[in-house]
Amino acid sequence: MPNGYAGRILHVNLSNGSINIEQPDESFYRFYMGGSALAMHYILREVPKGADPLGPENVLVVSVGVLTGAPISGQSRVMANAKSPLTGAIGDSQGGGFWPAELKRAGFDAVVIRGRAAKPVYLWIHDGEAELRDATHLWGKVTGEAEALIRQELGDPKVEVLQIGPAGEKLVRYAAIMNMSNRANGRTGMGAVMGSKNLKAIAVRGRQRPGIADPEALAKLARWGVENVESMIGGLARHGTANVVISQQEAGGLPTRNWTSGVFEHYEAISGPRMSETILKERDTCFGCAVRCKRVVEVKEPRWQVDPLYGGPEYETIATLGSYCGVGDLSAIAKGNELCNKYGLDTISTGATIAFAMDCFEHGLLTTADTGGIELRFGNGEAMVKLVELIAKREGIGDLLAEGSARAAARIGRGAERFVVAAKRQELPAHMPEVKRSLALIYAANPFGADHMSSEHDPSYSPTASATSLARMSSLGLICPQDPLVLNEEKVRFAFYVECFFSLLDSIGTCQFVWGPGWQLYGPNQLVEAVRAVTGWETSIFELMKVGERRLNMMRAFNAREGFGRKDDWLPARCFEPKKGGPSDGYAVSEEELRQALDWYYAIAGWDAEGKPTRGKLLELGLGWVADLL
Amino acid sequence: MPNGYAGRILHVNLSNGSINIEQPDESFYRFYMGGSALAMHYILREVPKGADPLGPENVLVVSVGVLTGAPISGQSRVMANAKSPLTGAIGDSQGGGFWPAELKRAGFDAVVIRGRAAKPVYLWIHDGEAELRDATHLWGKVTGEAEALIRQELGDPKVEVLQIGPAGEKLVRYAAIMNMSNRANGRTGMGAVMGSKNLKAIAVRGRQRPGIADPEALAKLARWGVENVESMIGGLARHGTANVVISQQEAGGLPTRNWTSGVFEHYEAISGPRMSETILKERDTCFGCAVRCKRVVEVKEPRWQVDPLYGGPEYETIATLGSYCGVGDLSAIAKGNELCNKYGLDTISTGATIAFAMDCFEHGLLTTADTGGIELRFGNGEAMVKLVELIAKREGIGDLLAEGSARAAARIGRGAERFVVAAKRQELPAHMPEVKRSLALIYAANPFGADHMSSEHDPSYSPTASATSLARMSSLGLICPQDPLVLNEEKVRFAFYVECFFSLLDSIGTCQFVWGPGWQLYGPNQLVEAVRAVTGWETSIFELMKVGERRLNMMRAFNAREGFGRKDDWLPARCFEPKKGGPSDGYAVSEEELRQALDWYYAIAGWDAEGKPTRGKLLELGLGWVADLL
Repeated sequence: MPNGYAGRILHVNLSNGSINIEQPDESFYRFYMGGSALAMHYILREVPKGADPLGPENVLVVSVGVLTGAPISGQSRVMANAKSPLTGAIGDSQGGGFWPAELKRAGFDAVVIRGRAAKPVYLWIHDGEAELRDATHLWGKVTGEAEALIRQELGDPKVEVLQIGPAGEKLVRYAAIMNMSNRANGRTGMGAVMGSKNLKAIAVRGRQRPGIADPEALAKLARWGVENVESMIGGLARHGTANVVISQQEAGGLPTRNWTSGVFEHYEAISGPRMSETILKERDTCFGCAVRCKRVVEVKEPRWQVDPLYGGPEYETIATLGSYCGVGDLSAIAKGNELCNKYGLDTISTGATIAFAMDCFEHGLLTTADTGGIELRFGNGEAMVKLVELIAKREGIGDLLAEGSARAAARIGRGAERFVVAAKRQELPAHMPEVKRSLALIYAANPFGADHMSSEHDPSYSPTASATSLARMSSLGLICPQDPLVLNEEKVRFAFYVECFFSLLDSIGTCQFVWGPGWQLYGPNQLVEAVRAVTGWETSIFELMKVGERRLNMMRAFNAREGFGRKDDWLPARCFEPKKGGPSDGYAVSEEELRQALDWYYAIAGWDAEGKPTRGKLLELGLGWVADLL
Repeated sequence: MPNGYAGRILHVNLSNGSINIEQPDESFYRFYMGGSALAMHYILREVPKGADPLGPENVLVVSVGVLTGAPISGQSRVMANAKSPLTGAIGDSQGGGFWPAELKRAGFDAVVIRGRAAKPVYLWIHDGEAELRDATHLWGKVTGEAEALIRQELGDPKVEVLQIGPAGEKLVRYAAIMNMSNRANGRTGMGAVMGSKNLKAIAVRGRQRPGIADPEALAKLARWGVENVESMIGGLARHGTANVVISQQEAGGLPTRNWTSGVFEHYEAISGPRMSETILKERDTCFGCAVRCKRVVEVKEPRWQVDPLYGGPEYETIATLGSYCGVGDLSAIAKGNELCNKYGLDTISTGATIAFAMDCFEHGLLTTADTGGIELRFGNGEAMVKLVELIAKREGIGDLLAEGSARAAARIGRGAERFVVAAKRQELPAHMPEVKRSLALIYAANPFGADHMSSEHDPSYSPTASATSLARMSSLGLICPQDPLVLNEEKVRFAFYVECFFSLLDSIGTCQFVWGPGWQLYGPNQLVEAVRAVTGWETSIFELMKVGERRLNMMRAFNAREGFGRKDDWLPARCFEPKKGGPSDGYAVSEEELRQALDWYYAIAGWDAEGKPTRGKLLELGLGWVADLL
């Protein structure tokens, strides 16, 4: 492929076992680029309004993008999309590892999965071919075991396995899809969708190198990245995402005890440097990445034995299983993380749902009668670990909590809703809108529920941001630094543009720690260079931003058809309650500022008063067919 | 200036003689870049609703942009903006030459002119300073003479003079602003606004080289241009804009006899190659440009003596004074062109208004009693030349025609309106919507009346376009070639994006023959390189496109406040009448397709059903203050 892009899409119908291969025109790839934009092309057309997310009419798309597998950092991500069993809106999640690059080497950009298998199966994709195989013997197995069995059965230790664990089989509403047993497509319950289809795994192996139009230009860009990891994102490389625990604490932005405070007294004990000094076994990497931000930990304490196969906790996991729950024991957190990865659970929703349950317990809405005797108090690490397992297995109180905090609260009743910290029923990740005000808007408005990967956080745009970060932002037309604590018109414009940019990254399938609009290793203009080098297309940020905006609008259109509107774009009560202690003492989002910001945001995005894309906006994006669907 | 941009804006109040210098922040330049975007910043704020375009409350802004004067082709353009006496809407025109680069060397990016001088004055700007000088002795002088007198008086033959001729003094509604006596800011009557202010000229001289952040990068880009002029735009370089006469004829797109036909039997006699073989004296250039598209002609026939000082006719002039009027005599056209430049008239509106008058004469609505004995028939070259002079001097029938064809028709009555070929009362330039359907939309909708420099023409986007042109278009997200004869949703999207791009060029102040989205010497990505090299900004097409969209929205906002709406976004009757003869025999725009296209266009642009920018769109562009004005 000297120039241009040619790819293939695998279509699988589990109900009848049919497998088809589609070879779209190059213009299709140029229009969607891959990932969730590409997924929406199928999901919007095929998933009927009101479909049961766990029924056979839901369509699950697992996809990579045009850059995936290119020999440069941050280009091995897999996106998973379907209607979400957690939110009822569109679902979306991204994961890293080696599986994404391997799918590309096996000759495919996406797998579109329809129907439901009569009994457990797995999909085996190898060098342009695909087959469904029996998975009855794998059902119920934890991820590490299933992976080993599949590799053994296929006779190739290099097979990469994307799979669900027991939590996905049990339809936990926030079950993850795992690969390498330690990389998660965590959010919005895509693992439950896979489980509902009786699809245990997708194993891939391939020997076809993705074409590169301009290998020299790409190599130059790759070298630049290698040389600049330390200066640009040295902390992330050295300590992993856990590196930010300390800065979050210092900003009063470390969510603690179910979001009642932004400071946690044991923050040092769960920080990145502490992890490096104690339980860290080694650094791990995704395919071809020079950053190596992934941690592998090992705990040998009998109480918390942690198998390094299951990686190590990310910042989000440390916060949700840690400070959210008041747990300051890194080993307990590591154990909880191991269990999430073993069983296939989203660590964010898992930790946040446990924190919710602890808050209920502290307020007497849950008792030991409900918990089977567990003293579900903030700070009880053993209880936290135990609950991870109960949730994964839907045992005891775990069966209730497997529904997510919002549904659990509805069943608990007696005002338990006030302890739910979720938007669109998805639990909030560990960046606080109270101290980064653009997140108030994006958590509320994001089509797949509260998400921290759909917005650059305000400090990257503040006067204290680095010159490089501000310069990169300026390439997106954002030329005035802003106060993180305001949510004015300019901040909303910032949030919208940056949301479109991240939406692009989830279409191309690019790691957001390595590529981004601000502090990341590579900036927007370098992304353009990368797309040019790989595809030979004469592209620009303008064209790429339109891809991101297209994805966002397709998702909003999906939600609008499902009846989602302004009422659903809102924050949980806790965000409006003053935080206690530390630098963010007294901080809260105000309902009035969020209402006003939503007005601006919808208008800026070209949506109506309910947040539904207007026909004009859809036409501007070349999406007339979506307007016709609405 | 190693990095960044610092400029100055000159403010002149002619009513009280005050002169002030403003030094805006860099963010101001980054937001507007210069040119008419910058002009709108002042005009929108200061020109009151309902202002008389020829009264002292109109504000005239003469401006250049951030790239002006940089040592690379196509970077010496001057923009003029004010409320238009021809259209009553916002006025806008661009011109080339050496004056623009000289204004920059004199230390300024723009001159904002308010009020009205009690007696004729001229403005003398030199090396960062400015003064008003008496121009009583220059009033009534033709451009060549006034220019010579000013240079003599200032004692410097290198002074560049931007001025009006007698037509501007007489407030001909389509009077031009001239520089070098042969470069025109032709359209929308900016010369009449200057005349109404008793401002004869702006003379400039400076020795300050504009700063270049990365001289090597710019030099490399400049060299690329020099090396590729022949392969990219060789025809334009060799034969000037007149080069397209033959291709227009072959497409049936050469407007003939007041737009009744798209073919002209004498097209070869008025073609670029014929001009090169006969009356061409030499090629001329604007500052620093390797293209040298400008023609200088000399005619020695006693009847049509043409002074080479006044340059030579462009394609638009050849068509409007030629085929529009049925005149196939290149010498007559050259004479008409000379007179337009001498007196300071827009050749397009001049020729088109004469063609209108000829049509009226042919149909008996005007007679020799009205014309002072002139047989004003199609094909009468002497009559055409005579009328140019009468219009400039407002003598005889010239006084009526100096009002433009729309106002003249209203006075003639008896159905003369059907012969008016104008949009928003501005006469149509010589590219036919009947064969390039995107122009139907843009002629109708453009805020400053029918304009051919606000849209790439369809063939650049058709399957027959060059690979380079299509690749460049793709960088603007336009990936599917289109049939020039359709006006579908995708075509409207194309027209809108390209309109934003050209709007950008008129903000940066860049020649549209040298830089553009398709067939031009340089494409969009190279423009980004140029802006980076000159300013050091980490910019992108995304940021730049937003500047263009900003200008367009500010202009639409100005018009909306003046009461312009959907009714004004329309084509003249003639465009809906079938053309006669040649390849476009029977071709017409349909009212229904235009109505539908306007619906799509407004929606795509983020405007309401009247074509007024919505608050949301203005917020998205950072123009909250404009929304507050409406």
